[in-house]
Amino acid sequence: MFLVHEVGMRDGLQMEKQLVPFETKVKWIEKMIESKVDIIQLGSFVHKEKMPQMADSDELFNYFNKKKYNVVFSGLALNERGMERALACGVNLLCLGVSASETHSQKNTRMSVDEATERIINIAKESMKAGLEVQTSVQSALGCGFEGAIPEEKVLTIIKKYLDAGIRKVSLADTAGYGNPAQVERMVCAIKELDAELEIACHFHNTYGMGLVNYYAAMKRGAKVFESSTGGLGGCPFTKLAAGNVCTEDLINLLNQMGLRKDIDINVFIELAKEMAEFFQRELPGYVYKAGLMKK
Amino acid sequence: MFLVHEVGMRDGLQMEKQLVPFETKVKWIEKMIESKVDIIQLGSFVHKEKMPQMADSDELFNYFNKKKYNVVFSGLALNERGMERALACGVNLLCLGVSASETHSQKNTRMSVDEATERIINIAKESMKAGLEVQTSVQSALGCGFEGAIPEEKVLTIIKKYLDAGIRKVSLADTAGYGNPAQVERMVCAIKELDAELEIACHFHNTYGMGLVNYYAAMKRGAKVFESSTGGLGGCPFTKLAAGNVCTEDLINLLNQMGLRKDIDINVFIELAKEMAEFFQRELPGYVYKAGLMKK
Repeated sequence: MFLVHEVGMRDGLQMEKQLVPFETKVKWIEKMIESKVDIIQLGSFVHKEKMPQMADSDELFNYFNKKKYNVVFSGLALNERGMERALACGVNLLCLGVSASETHSQKNTRMSVDEATERIINIAKESMKAGLEVQTSVQSALGCGFEGAIPEEKVLTIIKKYLDAGIRKVSLADTAGYGNPAQVERMVCAIKELDAELEIACHFHNTYGMGLVNYYAAMKRGAKVFESSTGGLGGCPFTKLAAGNVCTEDLINLLNQMGLRKDIDINVFIELAKEMAEFFQRELPGYVYKAGLMKK
Repeated sequence: MFLVHEVGMRDGLQMEKQLVPFETKVKWIEKMIESKVDIIQLGSFVHKEKMPQMADSDELFNYFNKKKYNVVFSGLALNERGMERALACGVNLLCLGVSASETHSQKNTRMSVDEATERIINIAKESMKAGLEVQTSVQSALGCGFEGAIPEEKVLTIIKKYLDAGIRKVSLADTAGYGNPAQVERMVCAIKELDAELEIACHFHNTYGMGLVNYYAAMKRGAKVFESSTGGLGGCPFTKLAAGNVCTEDLINLLNQMGLRKDIDINVFIELAKEMAEFFQRELPGYVYKAGLMKK
C-alpha cells in the first residue's frame, strides 16, 4: 500500500512570508486528520528567528498529543537541538536529512556531505535509542540547482551509511525538481538492490512539472511513501529555483483513479486548498482543487 | 524514436478570444520549424464564423507550402468540406476524429458514435486515396466530462474499424484529462495487441495535472507520437472542464532529461512560450519556460 505524507504545514508554509496563526494551523491540521491521510508533518525544529513560520512547532505537537489520533505526526529537525525539542514534545516520526550535493550541503549546513552525514546519523541513532521512528533523507538526490547532475553513486553511498546505522526508512528528496522518471526508476531499483525491505519515501518537487510522473515511476519500482503538500503549496528556501511541492489532492486523485487509497478523503484536501488559496490570496499550483472532482 | 507533434496553433489558439494576426502566426510557426520539431499543426478547417481564430488556416498552408521544409504540417478537419479544403491547400497529415462518448459525440457532431465513425472513415479513405497521410483519433478515449468512465471496449471497437479501413495512424485523445497512467498502459497495450505495427499517437489534456505522467506511461508501452502545445496553451471548447494541453517545452524537457530528442531545440519553445504569454497578457501553464533550463 502506498502512503501519503502531508508536508504542507512544514514544507508548504516555510516559504510563506505571511504568518499563519496557531489557531488556523490547528483548524487545518484537524481537517487533515479527518481525511485519514497517513502521516502529517506538523512543523520543523529550527531557530524561531531563522524561520518564524515554524516557531509554534513544539506547541502544535503538544496540542495534538493531548488526544489520541490514528495518524502519524512527523517533524523535521536539522541538528541536535532540534532533536531535543522533538523528543520533548512527542514527535512520532522524526525526519532528518543531508544533501548529496556538496554546494547545497555547504549552503544548508556549512558542512561537507560526509561531515553532515556523520552528524545526522549520530542524531538518528540517538533518536532511535530514545524510541522515535526515524526517516533520513538524501536531498538533491536527483540533481542540484547549483551543481547540476549528482552521481547516483554519491546518493547510494549515503544510503549505505544509513543502512549500516540501522535506519529503516529513507527518503529521496528531489529538492531542485531535476529528476526524470527513467532516473527515478533506476534509483529506486538501485536502493532496493541494497536492501529490498528498506522503506523508501519520495519527496519530489514539481519545479519542472515532473512531480507526478516521477511519483508514478517510483511507485512502479516499489517506493512506499509519497510526500506532498495541500494545493502544492511551498518549496525549499535553500535551493535555487526550487518551487512547488507535489500537490496532495492531485496525488490522491492519481491514486484514486488507479483504484488506490480511496480511504483517504480527497474532498478534505480540495476544500483545504481552496481555504489556503483564500488565506494567501493567490492561486495555488494544484489542478484538482480548481477543476473539481472527476465525474464517476 | 518518439515524435513531438506541436498543436498549439490549433488546439492552443482555438480557445483564445484574442485573434492572432496572420503575420504573428507565420512568425511563431517559422520559429517552430527552426526548432526541428517533427510535426506542426497549422490549423483546422472549420467554419470561419464558428471559429474565427482558425479562419486563415488554408492561407497558412498555402504560405508554408511555397517553400520546402523538413517538417510535417498537419491540419484538422471535422467533415467533408474540411477535407476538401485540406486537399486544396496541401496538408501533409490530415487529422480526423470521433468521440467514444455518445454525449460528447452528439454535442460535437449531432451524430451517434457509430454514425460519426462511419462518416469519418469514409472521409479518411477518400483522403488516403487522394494521397494524404491520415491520422484518426478517438476523443474522450480515457473518460468523458459528461459521462464519466468510457468502456475500453468502446474505444477498441472504433480502433478496429479504423484498422479495417486501412488506417495506420491512430490517436488516443484524452479530451477531458481523465486518464490515469495505469489505464493508459492498459489501453496502449490493448491497441498494440490488435496491431503491433499501428502508429499510436497521444493527445492528452492536463486538466488534472496528469498529462506528463500519462505520456510517460504511453511511452513505456510503445506509443510513438505525442501532441503538445507551446506553453501549454489551450484545451477543447466542446467538453466540460477541459483545460490545458500538455506543454511542449515541458514534454521536450522530460524527453531531454531521459537522453531523448536532444535534436529538438527546446530553447525555441521556451522563448516562444514567453512571447505568447506576453501576447495574451497572462501566465501560461507551462513550467519550464518559467523555471528556465536545468543546469547540466
